[in-house]
This record gives sequence, C-alpha cells and structure tokens, in this order.
Amino acid sequence: MASARQVETKESKAKKIAEMNKRVIDLCEKLIREIEKNENPFIEIPIRGSANVFFDEKAKKIVLGDKIAKRYFFNVAHARRFMQTMLVASYVKKDLLENDLTATLRDLYYAKKHTIKGTKEDTIDEQKESDLAIVDLEVAMESFRERLHLRAEPKGRMAGDLVIEDSVRGKVDTIDLSHMGSGGWAVPSIVEQIEFKKADIEYVLVAEKNAIFDRLNEDGYWKKQKCLLMTTAGQAARGARRLLQRLSTELKLPIYCLTDADPYGWYIYSTMKYGSMALAHESDRLGCPEMKFLGMTITDIEHYDLKNVTIKAKDVDVKRAEEIKAYDWFKAKEWQSEIKKFLEKRIKAEIQALSSKNLQYISNTYLPEKIRNKDFLP
Amino acid sequence: MASARQVETKESKAKKIAEMNKRVIDLCEKLIREIEKNENPFIEIPIRGSANVFFDEKAKKIVLGDKIAKRYFFNVAHARRFMQTMLVASYVKKDLLENDLTATLRDLYYAKKHTIKGTKEDTIDEQKESDLAIVDLEVAMESFRERLHLRAEPKGRMAGDLVIEDSVRGKVDTIDLSHMGSGGWAVPSIVEQIEFKKADIEYVLVAEKNAIFDRLNEDGYWKKQKCLLMTTAGQAARGARRLLQRLSTELKLPIYCLTDADPYGWYIYSTMKYGSMALAHESDRLGCPEMKFLGMTITDIEHYDLKNVTIKAKDVDVKRAEEIKAYDWFKAKEWQSEIKKFLEKRIKAEIQALSSKNLQYISNTYLPEKIRNKDFLP
Repeated sequence: MASARQVETKESKAKKIAEMNKRVIDLCEKLIREIEKNENPFIEIPIRGSANVFFDEKAKKIVLGDKIAKRYFFNVAHARRFMQTMLVASYVKKDLLENDLTATLRDLYYAKKHTIKGTKEDTIDEQKESDLAIVDLEVAMESFRERLHLRAEPKGRMAGDLVIEDSVRGKVDTIDLSHMGSGGWAVPSIVEQIEFKKADIEYVLVAEKNAIFDRLNEDGYWKKQKCLLMTTAGQAARGARRLLQRLSTELKLPIYCLTDADPYGWYIYSTMKYGSMALAHESDRLGCPEMKFLGMTITDIEHYDLKNVTIKAKDVDVKRAEEIKAYDWFKAKEWQSEIKKFLEKRIKAEIQALSSKNLQYISNTYLPEKIRNKDFLP
Repeated sequence: MASARQVETKESKAKKIAEMNKRVIDLCEKLIREIEKNENPFIEIPIRGSANVFFDEKAKKIVLGDKIAKRYFFNVAHARRFMQTMLVASYVKKDLLENDLTATLRDLYYAKKHTIKGTKEDTIDEQKESDLAIVDLEVAMESFRERLHLRAEPKGRMAGDLVIEDSVRGKVDTIDLSHMGSGGWAVPSIVEQIEFKKADIEYVLVAEKNAIFDRLNEDGYWKKQKCLLMTTAGQAARGARRLLQRLSTELKLPIYCLTDADPYGWYIYSTMKYGSMALAHESDRLGCPEMKFLGMTITDIEHYDLKNVTIKAKDVDVKRAEEIKAYDWFKAKEWQSEIKKFLEKRIKAEIQALSSKNLQYISNTYLPEKIRNKDFLP
C-alpha cells in the first residue's frame, strides 16, 4: 500500500518513549541548574487563553499564538500549579513511560493526590487541577497527551476494507475491518501505534451517529461504495479525530462528514476539521483540514423534500447558530448562506429524517448522489 | 465447544422472521374478524405500570404480573394509540421483516409520522408515542424489540479468547475477540444472530467503565486470567445485556460485575442481573440472574485501605442509597449491610481509586484476590 509514513516498529515506539523521557529530563535538569544557581526556577508555558488563540486561515486550523508565560516556583500565585506540573511530570516518566503503560487523567489524579507530609495541605484538591497541569506539561514540552501515555475516553466504531495492525505492549494484532460483523471495531483512545497495512477504499465517511453506522453497515454501503465507515457517536473523541487525520494525511483519502442539519452537527464537523478553541494547542495533531461536509444542510431539506420531517429550532439552536456564524472558520460564503437559511427558516433536520422516504434512501440515493455531484460544503 | 444452544443457521433466522410475521398476521386477522362481525376490535396488552410489576424471588427477576388491559378501537381514550400500534405493526412487517432490514425507533417515527388525509391530525406527534406503541406490540405479541428488527443505541466493547460468528444480511463474519488490539470489538445493538464458535474462557468480567477495560486489556488481564472482558460504558445497553445473558445461559460462564462503590454502580449491576421496573417485560430476555457482584464495595474501601481516595457522598447519593435499600432485589443481608455501611460512612469510591496503590494493582492484586476468595455479593 502506498504510504509515505514511516513504518511503526518496536524500535520507533521505543524511540518515541525515549524522546519523551528526554524532554522530561531536560526540563527537570534546567530546573535543577536554576536551583543550584539560587535562581527562581521557572517553566515556560504557551498561553492558552482566548487572547492567544486564533484561526490560521491558510493552514485551516485553530491554533495557539506565540505568547508564552513563565511560571515561577517562588511566586505565591504560581507555586501550587508549579508543584502539580512536577507531580504530573514525575508520574508520566516513572509510572507510565518507563513501564510502557498508559493511564487516564483520573488515574493520575488518584495516584498523585496526597497530603504533603507535616502539613494539612493536599497536593491536588480536584481533578480539574491535575488536568490543567497535564496540559501545561503537554504544551511546555511541545508534545501531546497521548505521547505522555495518557488516555482519554474512547468513542467510535469503524468498518471497511482496511487492514490495520494495532499493538498492545508488544502483542501485535492484525485487524481486518471488513469482517467486524454488525458491531464494528471500537476506536481506541490512543491510535499512535496503529499501522495501516492494506486498504481498498476511496474515501472515508464519518457519521455523527451510531444509528447511521448501523444503517450503512447493514446496507453493505461501505463495500459497494469502497469507503471506510466511521461513527463518532456524537462529538468526536480524541482517538477518532487523530485517526481521521492520519487517514487523511497518510493514506491521502478524502474524508466526508455527515451530521444532523443543525448548529450542533455543524460544530461537530468544524471541531474535527479545524480543531477547537479549548484544544487549540492540539489542532496540529487532531485537526483534519481536508475534511469536507457532505450533509445535512438546510438546502438538503428543500432539495430532498424533507419539509414534513423537520424540527422547529429552539431559541438555544438559534443562539448557537448566531455564535458559529461569527466564527472565523465559518466565514466561507457557502456556510454563511446555510446558516442564514437556518436563521430565516428556523428549522432543523436529523439524518434519520431521510428514513421518511424509505429506510435505504440514504444508502441508495442520498449519499451516492451527494458524492457523485460533489455536493459538499467546505 | 459444549453448547446446548441450537446452531443459528440461515434457516433458523428465516424461521424467526416467519414466526414474527405470523404473529403480526394473526393479530391483524383477529381484528379483521372482529370488524367483519361488527364487533369493537381490541388488542390485549399486558399492563406495564408499577401495579403489575413485581420481583420474582425464585427466578431472580423483575417481571410483569398477569394483569392484561384490552385496548379498543371504538374508545375515544384508546383509538389514537390503537392506530399507532397498527402503524408500528405495519412498519415492522412490511418495511423490516419482509426485507430483512432493521431500523431504530427514530426511523420508525419518521417513517410513520404523517398528516392523515383530509384532516389536520398527525398520526404521531412525538417519538414518545410511537415508542410506547412499539412496546405495546412487543408485549402483545409476547416478543421483544430485537425480534421485531428494531435497534437500540449500541454501547460496549469486548475482548477475550472467544471466537464468534456475526452475520449481516447473509454476510457472515468470523471474529476472533482475542485479536482486537487496543480498541476491542464493539457490541452491536442486536445480538440474536451471534453464534459462539470457540471459547477458551473461564468467566466473564463486565466493567462499568471504559477506563477499566483499557487498563485490563493493556495488562493482558483477560489472557492471563482466561476471562472474557466487557465494558458497558455506563448503564448497560440492551445488546450488551442480552449478550451477557447468552454467555451465562448458553456457555454456562460465571459473570462477575465491577462497578464504582456507589449506589449508581450498584444499580447498574442490579439492572443487568434482575432487569428493571421500566423494562420488566424484558427481564426474561435481558436479565442475567446468575451474575455476581465482584466490587467495589464499601468493605473493599476498608479492606484495601482506600480511605484517602474516597469521595464524600452527596445528598443525592444518600437518597439513591435509601431507595435501593428498599428494593426487594436488594434485600439480601449482604447488600443491606453494604448499603447500611454506605449510609453510615457517607463515602463512595471509584474503581480508579485502586490506581492510588499502583496502576496495575487492579490487575495483579485486587481482581485475582477477590476472585480467588470468591469475595462476591449476591
């Protein structure tokens, strides 16, 4: 299979671990040098607030700017978070990387929460604190959570003519995603180790909803249309987003996204494509700028005569639409026109509204037609 | 593999469809006879309200009693729901069973919602109505949703030394659950068609949380301990519950359940084991009376010295505990004692609290010890 990507071997995994280990050590040695020189030790951390987040129009990504804050140990406002960042670094290095283990943010919280000897002070009160310290470490080391061996909640399922290799601590499994029955393969939270071995697919179709995955899988859609089918089961999890990015960049596959025709569906799409403000530091790794929006649109409602199965937009939908209309990454004229239509008509539609035609209308008519006509939004 | 279960063949699937078809036809022919005799057509529907739900202590199931209501067509209070039940029956027969297709409750709603000709009356206003009509049809035909080819939202992942066969409209896939990498196999919403082909497992461990699945999968727990690992990712979905029941009854495997030490976790367990009041008509098919509760308990908190990583119970937790304490299916003295302890100490603990010992404590110490000592609650 044509792929420019370096083959993931045991060595390269070991290399990745060694590289992360080195970054942690470098940071800590810098701090020790400062301590020995009687200086005030500090960590440089890119600022993540909205003042330092912007939309990079050319790269099609929501990214962090170059503002950096220094966090000092001898500063009453910084000391606690400084200590927490060090706790995270020690856990990542000694508990995770050195043992080739992964953990959740919750595991880390439980492992590092304790009362400091001789005081009544707890290292961490709430998980929110250690979570923030984790992101601090990620951005300070110009890396990302999964490379620190920290797992998020997994979500999503896949099926299609793609053979992958996935490894769990040395155990390598070859998984043929064309033989996953009615269930599909569950997308894990860390996908760095996955290798694409053999593909017979022309595009990836990612649906917001489990129900659509089931419909298309039952219809043999992915086989007939030579596509890889994925559902994100709502807002996409990190693992699913990263995998979509890798399918886009490494296998050069077009990625088409299918959500409900409402501001929440459109926002799910935009997060997969451009990233989000909250995770602007992750867009490089989680964004998928080449992704296209297949549907559903308000125009689809007219074109496919779905007026009878629309839902009246609530005030909260209208408010959300006005918000996303103002986002830089929704400024394309096609999107502005769609959102305008939504605000005028104040109706929304679910993908399942297509079932009012007939159950297989989505597989036999809607999707093939949209794809044949390249009827996408940017 | 030893299994008393009849082998699921194409014929037997066709047979199941034919059987359901026949039940729908029988019901409708009965109604036609009544119409021809100028009688008031009616459907007999077991009552599902709390007045007709009780706990069958011997069978260990929450079940429906034998109270039956008659729903008449010529009754202003019944006519609308009567019509909706007929719409559901027609969809199930003509759209689903005859084409060997499955659909979601939402699909059915969209397909059957329309304005009745010459009136301003809609057949269905909200999905809640068609959902209720579906359950009416289920119980009236002494069947269950999946046999009517109606899908629910799927949830859950599996891994272990079990080979299954799953089929999607004639396409048969053999799936080896011991080679699912870090993701696992996604449990589908309908599992009737699944065949167990080869098993090398001694018990099933079902964990409430994805994070625990990931931990145990990474530790190779299921391989070392010869178990089948499943996560329900929260409250168990119908597909996961039915699959657990089938593993229990057909493969005679012990099923051990692992949840947080709090009333919500315990209730998740009780629903899988005994069924629930809302789905009392489904306990026969979804309940798993042989299931045992492995943990976590309030006693575990003491025994494994987890006092420093407990969480203070909120008022809502206490209220929930008082409720479940009163349920007939929590009357076993072991449970009463646990709930009493909870109410006295007013603390709860998450499974991940075990990570405060060390990340692999759950795999290397907690689980093997509990299972070796048969330290279960009924």
